Amino acid sequence: MNENGPIQTRLTRRFGIRHPVVCAPMAFVAGGALAAGVSRAGGLGVVAGGYAGALGAEADLDAELVTASAEKFGAGFITWALERSPQMLTRALKHSPFCIVLSFGDPRPFAREIRDSGAALICQVQFLSQIDLAVEAGAAAIVAQGGEAGGHGAARSTLPFIPEAADYLRKHSPETLLIAAGGIADGRGLAAALILGADGVLMGTRFWASAEALTPRSHTDKAIGSTGDATIRTKAFDALRGAPWPREYSFRILKNKLTAEWADRESEALRSFGALSTEYARARAQNDLDMVAIVCGEAIGLLRDRPSAASIVESMVTQAAELLRKSSSLNFT
Amino acid sequence: MNENGPIQTRLTRRFGIRHPVVCAPMAFVAGGALAAGVSRAGGLGVVAGGYAGALGAEADLDAELVTASAEKFGAGFITWALERSPQMLTRALKHSPFCIVLSFGDPRPFAREIRDSGAALICQVQFLSQIDLAVEAGAAAIVAQGGEAGGHGAARSTLPFIPEAADYLRKHSPETLLIAAGGIADGRGLAAALILGADGVLMGTRFWASAEALTPRSHTDKAIGSTGDATIRTKAFDALRGAPWPREYSFRILKNKLTAEWADRESEALRSFGALSTEYARARAQNDLDMVAIVCGEAIGLLRDRPSAASIVESMVTQAAELLRKSSSLNFT
Repeated sequence: MNENGPIQTRLTRRFGIRHPVVCAPMAFVAGGALAAGVSRAGGLGVVAGGYAGALGAEADLDAELVTASAEKFGAGFITWALERSPQMLTRALKHSPFCIVLSFGDPRPFAREIRDSGAALICQVQFLSQIDLAVEAGAAAIVAQGGEAGGHGAARSTLPFIPEAADYLRKHSPETLLIAAGGIADGRGLAAALILGADGVLMGTRFWASAEALTPRSHTDKAIGSTGDATIRTKAFDALRGAPWPREYSFRILKNKLTAEWADRESEALRSFGALSTEYARARAQNDLDMVAIVCGEAIGLLRDRPSAASIVESMVTQAAELLRKSSSLNFT
Repeated sequence: MNENGPIQTRLTRRFGIRHPVVCAPMAFVAGGALAAGVSRAGGLGVVAGGYAGALGAEADLDAELVTASAEKFGAGFITWALERSPQMLTRALKHSPFCIVLSFGDPRPFAREIRDSGAALICQVQFLSQIDLAVEAGAAAIVAQGGEAGGHGAARSTLPFIPEAADYLRKHSPETLLIAAGGIADGRGLAAALILGADGVLMGTRFWASAEALTPRSHTDKAIGSTGDATIRTKAFDALRGAPWPREYSFRILKNKLTAEWADRESEALRSFGALSTEYARARAQNDLDMVAIVCGEAIGLLRDRPSAASIVESMVTQAAELLRKSSSLNFT
């Protein structure tokens, strides 16, 4: 029993962290300050390696990793982009991250280099069918990501995905940890994820709106106050801006003029591949919020503020512990 | 405290039922035998009035309601279809249902007749923005349905939708009950839904594969053993078969030849409205499982069998109670 201590899971024990809360490596958002802030609060922060430079200039990954390395930290990459710039993994590993998070592609080509470095491999999956490759790659943990997540993702939903993934792992690879992602932004989501069979959670949107995130203030100002009804998942956007995302992934963003026009016309957008690149680049340069992607998930409807990462972690684990303690009475009246 | 009794919620107290489990009024699936089976087991069964006859022949609603009325029961309708055949509500109310469940449309035109009959009104919503109309109609309970649900639904996901709806109701209509739907098929889903702030759950897919459901055996035989990856939500299907569903709703079914061809071509399908009606009617007559809709949600990946409704209710409430009792230790290792 552990009536007054923090929530303990296989994730907190094996990773040596105080709380089962991981920050998603959100491209252009999760830099070293956010990662360090989450880890300092007892979670695990992960710096975004994003597209590994494959789509042009990004924040200086080395500088961000140096900042993060004041604490236990990880680095995350978009796997299909890392294939084009594998040297970025080598560079990241020089900073001795505790873990590498890979998502959106086959992790196996990178598994050996990661293992040899001593870092733990965490593989994010969007379909149950992707778990086998992650297990084959030797993943210490699998993140099962529901489509309610902001940014890139796919079509499963967290609530039914987690117990199904838990059953699958129990049968095929019981030592592999399971982390829930998608739609989790507070202690209710954390407690529910643990009940559903996860060993912890990975959160994007909640940390996207944190003081330490690199998110433009204009984006969080526009998004906070929206309900979860206000986001949409579409493939049209990547097609139009010419980002070569594999067909199975779509992008959840705040609805705007662009999505109103294109969200339901995915096959047409695919035929117009890259047609919007110039226009979109201009809108981005001008920070035209009707055109640029404000990247957040359905959990935006649960946010009211942009607090520090420490305050986010602390308040959610406190809330989750209270809910879990209370619910043993079976009295929800 | 209630250490050895069943789970108690505002729903079980106010509705006078033993378990906070409601059976979804699935068109062509939830007849009187299923409704009575769920209610006899301590949940609440709801007979499907479906399209209220607006789309042609259905099971004899009166006969099904007579069967259900051996127990406390409800009747459910697709609201936009009921507008075309409002007399079906009057007929249903003659059987003195405990509640009427309305989904997919404005409930207000029917609220008075329902209230005057003494039945409770339950309104299912797919967006946070629909809650106001339901409250205005005097709903005793709101079902917030995530898009992982089988059959008709929309784009929200259950895990972030429930806490957001709970917050909204607490602020605007604290007496209104909240029921979670979408992706829930066992005690893990029930316990998670309660932790997220729901007063109970409404389940479709799990009861769709029950002994008492009207579901063709060939459909459950084909679906059980599929993972949750195997379903898809699309608007193309209704467009092609000529069912006049409002634009905001789509249909989740098991992927098949038809969805492989059309699922990503929604705007094209809308322009071909009704083009598949004849072909689809033929496929349905022949029970061609590559063409007909096998209607289930992502929770299909959690099913292994087609047990009785009583066994479903009993095992899930037992599992949920165990999980909730255990989790108060905060030890998930």
